[in-house]
Amino acid sequence: MKLYNKHSKKAGLPPGTLVHVGEKHVEQVRIALMDYDEKNVNEKTNVTVEECLPFKSLPTVTWINVSGIHDIRVIEGFGKAFNIHPLVQENIVHAGQRPKMEDMEDYLYIVLKLITPGKNEEVFEMEQVSLIIGANYVISFQEKEGDVFHSIRERIKSGKGRIRKSGSDYLAYTLVDSVVDNYFVVLEGMGEKIEDLQEEVLGNPDPSNLNVIQNTKRQMILLRKSVWPLREAISGLRRSESPLIGDAVGPYLGDIYDHTIQVIETIEMLRDTASSVLDIYLSSLSNKMNEVMKVLTIMASIFIPLTFIAGVYGMNFKFMPELEWKWGYPVVWIVIITVSVLMIIGFRRRKWL
Amino acid sequence: MKLYNKHSKKAGLPPGTLVHVGEKHVEQVRIALMDYDEKNVNEKTNVTVEECLPFKSLPTVTWINVSGIHDIRVIEGFGKAFNIHPLVQENIVHAGQRPKMEDMEDYLYIVLKLITPGKNEEVFEMEQVSLIIGANYVISFQEKEGDVFHSIRERIKSGKGRIRKSGSDYLAYTLVDSVVDNYFVVLEGMGEKIEDLQEEVLGNPDPSNLNVIQNTKRQMILLRKSVWPLREAISGLRRSESPLIGDAVGPYLGDIYDHTIQVIETIEMLRDTASSVLDIYLSSLSNKMNEVMKVLTIMASIFIPLTFIAGVYGMNFKFMPELEWKWGYPVVWIVIITVSVLMIIGFRRRKWL
Amino acid sequence: MKLYNKHSKKAGLPPGTLVHVGEKHVEQVRIALMDYDEKNVNEKTNVTVEECLPFKSLPTVTWINVSGIHDIRVIEGFGKAFNIHPLVQENIVHAGQRPKMEDMEDYLYIVLKLITPGKNEEVFEMEQVSLIIGANYVISFQEKEGDVFHSIRERIKSGKGRIRKSGSDYLAYTLVDSVVDNYFVVLEGMGEKIEDLQEEVLGNPDPSNLNVIQNTKRQMILLRKSVWPLREAISGLRRSESPLIGDAVGPYLGDIYDHTIQVIETIEMLRDTASSVLDIYLSSLSNKMNEVMKVLTIMASIFIPLTFIAGVYGMNFKFMPELEWKWGYPVVWIVIITVSVLMIIGFRRRKWL
Amino acid sequence: MKLYNKHSKKAGLPPGTLVHVGEKHVEQVRIALMDYDEKNVNEKTNVTVEECLPFKSLPTVTWINVSGIHDIRVIEGFGKAFNIHPLVQENIVHAGQRPKMEDMEDYLYIVLKLITPGKNEEVFEMEQVSLIIGANYVISFQEKEGDVFHSIRERIKSGKGRIRKSGSDYLAYTLVDSVVDNYFVVLEGMGEKIEDLQEEVLGNPDPSNLNVIQNTKRQMILLRKSVWPLREAISGLRRSESPLIGDAVGPYLGDIYDHTIQVIETIEMLRDTASSVLDIYLSSLSNKMNEVMKVLTIMASIFIPLTFIAGVYGMNFKFMPELEWKWGYPVVWIVIITVSVLMIIGFRRRKWL
Amino acid sequence: MKLYNKHSKKAGLPPGTLVHVGEKHVEQVRIALMDYDEKNVNEKTNVTVEECLPFKSLPTVTWINVSGIHDIRVIEGFGKAFNIHPLVQENIVHAGQRPKMEDMEDYLYIVLKLITPGKNEEVFEMEQVSLIIGANYVISFQEKEGDVFHSIRERIKSGKGRIRKSGSDYLAYTLVDSVVDNYFVVLEGMGEKIEDLQEEVLGNPDPSNLNVIQNTKRQMILLRKSVWPLREAISGLRRSESPLIGDAVGPYLGDIYDHTIQVIETIEMLRDTASSVLDIYLSSLSNKMNEVMKVLTIMASIFIPLTFIAGVYGMNFKFMPELEWKWGYPVVWIVIITVSVLMIIGFRRRKWL
Repeated sequence: MKLYNKHSKKAGLPPGTLVHVGEKHVEQVRIALMDYDEKNVNEKTNVTVEECLPFKSLPTVTWINVSGIHDIRVIEGFGKAFNIHPLVQENIVHAGQRPKMEDMEDYLYIVLKLITPGKNEEVFEMEQVSLIIGANYVISFQEKEGDVFHSIRERIKSGKGRIRKSGSDYLAYTLVDSVVDNYFVVLEGMGEKIEDLQEEVLGNPDPSNLNVIQNTKRQMILLRKSVWPLREAISGLRRSESPLIGDAVGPYLGDIYDHTIQVIETIEMLRDTASSVLDIYLSSLSNKMNEVMKVLTIMASIFIPLTFIAGVYGMNFKFMPELEWKWGYPVVWIVIITVSVLMIIGFRRRKWL
Repeated sequence: MKLYNKHSKKAGLPPGTLVHVGEKHVEQVRIALMDYDEKNVNEKTNVTVEECLPFKSLPTVTWINVSGIHDIRVIEGFGKAFNIHPLVQENIVHAGQRPKMEDMEDYLYIVLKLITPGKNEEVFEMEQVSLIIGANYVISFQEKEGDVFHSIRERIKSGKGRIRKSGSDYLAYTLVDSVVDNYFVVLEGMGEKIEDLQEEVLGNPDPSNLNVIQNTKRQMILLRKSVWPLREAISGLRRSESPLIGDAVGPYLGDIYDHTIQVIETIEMLRDTASSVLDIYLSSLSNKMNEVMKVLTIMASIFIPLTFIAGVYGMNFKFMPELEWKWGYPVVWIVIITVSVLMIIGFRRRKWL
Repeated sequence: MKLYNKHSKKAGLPPGTLVHVGEKHVEQVRIALMDYDEKNVNEKTNVTVEECLPFKSLPTVTWINVSGIHDIRVIEGFGKAFNIHPLVQENIVHAGQRPKMEDMEDYLYIVLKLITPGKNEEVFEMEQVSLIIGANYVISFQEKEGDVFHSIRERIKSGKGRIRKSGSDYLAYTLVDSVVDNYFVVLEGMGEKIEDLQEEVLGNPDPSNLNVIQNTKRQMILLRKSVWPLREAISGLRRSESPLIGDAVGPYLGDIYDHTIQVIETIEMLRDTASSVLDIYLSSLSNKMNEVMKVLTIMASIFIPLTFIAGVYGMNFKFMPELEWKWGYPVVWIVIITVSVLMIIGFRRRKWL
Repeated sequence: MKLYNKHSKKAGLPPGTLVHVGEKHVEQVRIALMDYDEKNVNEKTNVTVEECLPFKSLPTVTWINVSGIHDIRVIEGFGKAFNIHPLVQENIVHAGQRPKMEDMEDYLYIVLKLITPGKNEEVFEMEQVSLIIGANYVISFQEKEGDVFHSIRERIKSGKGRIRKSGSDYLAYTLVDSVVDNYFVVLEGMGEKIEDLQEEVLGNPDPSNLNVIQNTKRQMILLRKSVWPLREAISGLRRSESPLIGDAVGPYLGDIYDHTIQVIETIEMLRDTASSVLDIYLSSLSNKMNEVMKVLTIMASIFIPLTFIAGVYGMNFKFMPELEWKWGYPVVWIVIITVSVLMIIGFRRRKWL
Repeated sequence: MKLYNKHSKKAGLPPGTLVHVGEKHVEQVRIALMDYDEKNVNEKTNVTVEECLPFKSLPTVTWINVSGIHDIRVIEGFGKAFNIHPLVQENIVHAGQRPKMEDMEDYLYIVLKLITPGKNEEVFEMEQVSLIIGANYVISFQEKEGDVFHSIRERIKSGKGRIRKSGSDYLAYTLVDSVVDNYFVVLEGMGEKIEDLQEEVLGNPDPSNLNVIQNTKRQMILLRKSVWPLREAISGLRRSESPLIGDAVGPYLGDIYDHTIQVIETIEMLRDTASSVLDIYLSSLSNKMNEVMKVLTIMASIFIPLTFIAGVYGMNFKFMPELEWKWGYPVVWIVIITVSVLMIIGFRRRKWL
């Protein structure tokens, strides 16, 4: 997971130039359309930009979902059809945006980062979702085809809840809400991972742990980078005086706002935990070193003096009366055993054994 | 103690769906009702939602306490009877809310976290308390049956203090006040624990201490997470222009506000202390290592040279004049003793002994 | 020195109940009264609440100083006589307040923490001082009898300076000023202590230093906790539009405000210094360890090879030509001396010796 | 790369004195001029100040680019011709300015720091760019001749994009935009470098790494120092009510503003990463030490006891029955082997081997 | 360099009492006077307060410079003559003020800290400079006679620049500007010192470095303490609506404001650098320890096994067949050499050699 997007790719190009930045996640851009009011639902998949156009003027709510942002022509098509500002188009195709909300009068433009649990070793995958919220339509741009919005589609079809009775603002709210909910899924997964790591590090610190810790910290930074501005964006939506956002949606936006704050708090807590795992790791290292040193000191302290005693009676002086004594050898053994026992008692007292 | 609630359980569900999130602490939801004015008190336990309804229109103050939030039908019953917004109902049954105050015009909605000393190894237990403050009624929702509000019940019955002469706003104040007071109880317990730990760590650092330190830090983070927004909520109540909060309650709210600030300061101080205990732990480790090393160095430095001397006269050269000397052996002993005494004096000078 | 006051003592009691919290520092509450204008001074000691009452309506400035706050009846007496709000009375007897200023219209209520140099091992003692500032009277409540306000009493009697020509607001200012001045006295004492500690730690780090460092840090936290809100309180007094504070006192309040900021800066600086003493302590430990290790390494590196050489010629092989040589033994000594000299030169080069 | 510019050079001089501060990067100041409207482009290189003057009053957009700021006379010439305030002139020639935007009514003055990838070991080079934005002209001052603005020149000549249709405000925007884009180029290079370093440090910590880490941190500080005020400057431009900045440029300025925030976030992230590389470095050191200690402990613990055993049977006591036994020697070997095997098993259990 | 001034000296004194706090730097207070307009300059040295008085009412600009603040009577003389508030007088003689600007209507009062490079081991000296800015006069109070304002005096005499054409506000500006410029001189000196230290610490960490690092940090704290409020003071001057500060001085004040921000940034950077030098110091210690340990481990690991081998053949068993072999001794040598070579290869592989 890269810490930054390749902005440098654009250095030197005139502003407003559409350049896809990011990985290409799908081969073919797919456009799905859903048009509904309280009574009817009309769903179409694999439509073209031109097929979307007539729905714009209908009084019903129209949701156009575009999977894949690498095809510049498609985005330009929508840009023309829905009268989207060139800079907004540029932002849609450039996957390195910060989450934000911009009131363009005719429509609101929201950029979000959708977080989904990663597939292989990646902890999570991040995808840019752009929303264009018009008077009676919402266009959502995703980097790849995903089933994140699937349950919303089902809810519309089944007509459960308020969604079919509400306008495009409520639809936009449910889309943002489902994006925010996904943060909780990923964060809970990471929380469990970090707690496991903490256990492991306490018992058996290993240099590889260090890498995992730093990785987690970095991912937290990445997540934080995408949630902090999200909070501002939602707060902007709430306070916005745009006629596109009705009063009834207010409390719901307040609810997502609370959720983003909880996401932020959880991220901060996980960062803190990752830091404390690092502390545990380092002090576990010290502990281990202490233990190694104790073993060395005990072995050396017991045997070096004994070796000295043996060395003394290995000397070849002619006149060494002890060597002649009958009980010399057993006495030396007694001395040796006494010294070692005293040593061991001493170490026991210092709680080294 | 989990660092977060299972928000992910709700991912994909339409907003406004009542889903109980949290552990189920009681089998049966119990509703207790207390209706009073300056002259009379009427107490009922184990009532149903329907039995509560008539009290709503009485001019007396009615306090309905609901223990247990897992029974969706009960909450929905209250929601219907007291005209509570679906999102508020959702918040009541979802135990993972941040403390907050919301002015819903007809009533105020307050979420709090009640902290009680934990039973087994847990340092504290956290429980969500929701308050609905109406014109002449207060409904309190607790996760479990507890005796936290018991003394308030007694005070109402005995008619001591201002409570019987005041309205529902004063009742709400006393409920919040008793929640805040419980923070002090828990924090004082933790403060003593940390101070004991500091003593222990200084004398005898042990890897298990590390776990306790990190645990304490984490609990402080959890507490902080629940008190910071509480402060905002109380500050919101104070500045609120809702007619539901009378002027006479103002100074009392100012008093709780001061208390929450003191709680926050205490938490920060305990976090700081936990951090400094970690510092002490780490430097105690270093100290111990130093001591181990000194023992090793002293033993090795004294005996290795002596062993060398003994080794020299253990050599089997034919022509080693010293070996023939009569006083060779005693002289070697004198050398050995001199060397060791000099060594010991040297170590004394360096204050290693 | 405890990090917090026993708030838990009050959990469950109705608000507005007067409960003395804190240690009881004096046996008998003593009330001293001073009544003055530009011409006359009237001083009385050991008066009762009733004796104070008539002075309230005189146009002269009356200063009532109450030493001891544990006698609930005395405080209640003043409360009744001077019409003090029950919550203010509760704050006066509860020694765990944060410094604050409250405008109660008829009077201003100020809580301060008086810091005096400690007697035994305590670095300082903290005492709560409450001031009730009325139109022409000031009541000061102290926890114990002290001579902090003695010099003010002398100044009033002697008629030096502006005090006799000014009203109760100027009297209140001088009281607060003398409280703030005491912070400097205590902080300078601590500053010298920390600098001594730094010297000591650099030369000879000892685990007991650690305790002193942590203690200092904790005391700084305690002081900071009492000065930060003091600054706000004084700033509140300055900006206050209460008619009780005349314009002429404005610059004087500005002066104390500056002093509180200097107190805060000094506290932060001492905290910083305490932290850096900890850094020095830890690196001194590392330095000592390095030295210990060097001694061990030098001793071992020199004598272990020599012992090996001696060991070789201690072997009992039948055919060891060197043993027969006449110059074998001296040659071995030459080798031994050469090896040690080379070693010593090597260690010198690495600057270990 | 110096952390500061030589401000001291100016101490004692009267303000408004033009003194070139900074290195002299080019020998000869070169002035290039470009004059264009939607239809025509007129480009001149190596012009003099006098030659620029007539273009000031033309309705077309004029861009004057000055490479080299060390020639005081040239700057004074422009100052006179374009009526530039002496302090602004002083800022232009003094390369130690903080980025800022100043509204001088007749013109806007912007100072920027242009970052370009460094040539040799330097990670980047920093150059001060000053812009004077008038009604229909922009004067840009660079410290050295560079090709940073080359692509803009090409865009003007080719007439692509909006630039030829827009005024001097849009030209100024593109200049600032290209400066900001260069930050991304440099930061991406540094990001890759730090990630390589992290790998290296984990495997094989080396004191030289330390230097690189500290260097990176310092460069981040330098960059941050130049970007934070840039953000403020651009924000100032956006909110500016100067008639020199048209409404149409607003969204474009918003876009650069977003970019500066992304630059800041990337810098913070890289600082964080550099810090964590330091953590990894330190714990890698500890790890290595642990390993060294283990080797020593294993070697010493196995062979010191064995040497003792050998020493015992090297003693010369007359009565040592074992020495006479036929199987004495083999038994000793068996003991030696058994002891070593037990030791090795013990170390294996502790996971030291 | 003390971290604080002796405020305690004043505890207990009535406010407004003039007490000189600080060291006495000059024996004799010297007053120099300069009176000028565009045409004439009148300079007088060693004047008395009385001699200054007539200049007050002249329309020309009068600059009175007072060197030495310990003589209370002189300050009181000026206080009376120029109608200076008693608290301002108190501040002038008390050298422990925080920099500030106060609008006293008739005059502005500015306190600054003048930093000059220290003479002996002190890195810098700090001196309090007070300015009284009246309608057509400026009085500057310095703690000691210095040549800091010398160049301004020269500039006035020579009539260069704007100074002779401008009023007392511009004179005050040049005084403040020269004080701020001196910060750069001191900071550049410290910057070079820290960079040298970093080099030294990397190569050869020494406990004395630690002291230098902590000293530098402390000096940075002291400087920061004097610059932060300076920034506020200058910002206050800029925004001040006092008629004493003319519009023409505005951009010049903006310029000093920028300089104070640069001073602050440089201080923060130097603090950061000092911290990173501490990091380098600590890790250099670890590195050295690692090296010491490696030497020990290599020596011990090679020679301890060899000594064991020699010990084995030093045993005195009767039946040790190897001892009888003719090639026993050479074979042992071969074994010894092989073992050492293998060891050395092993250590090479681990990159310890």
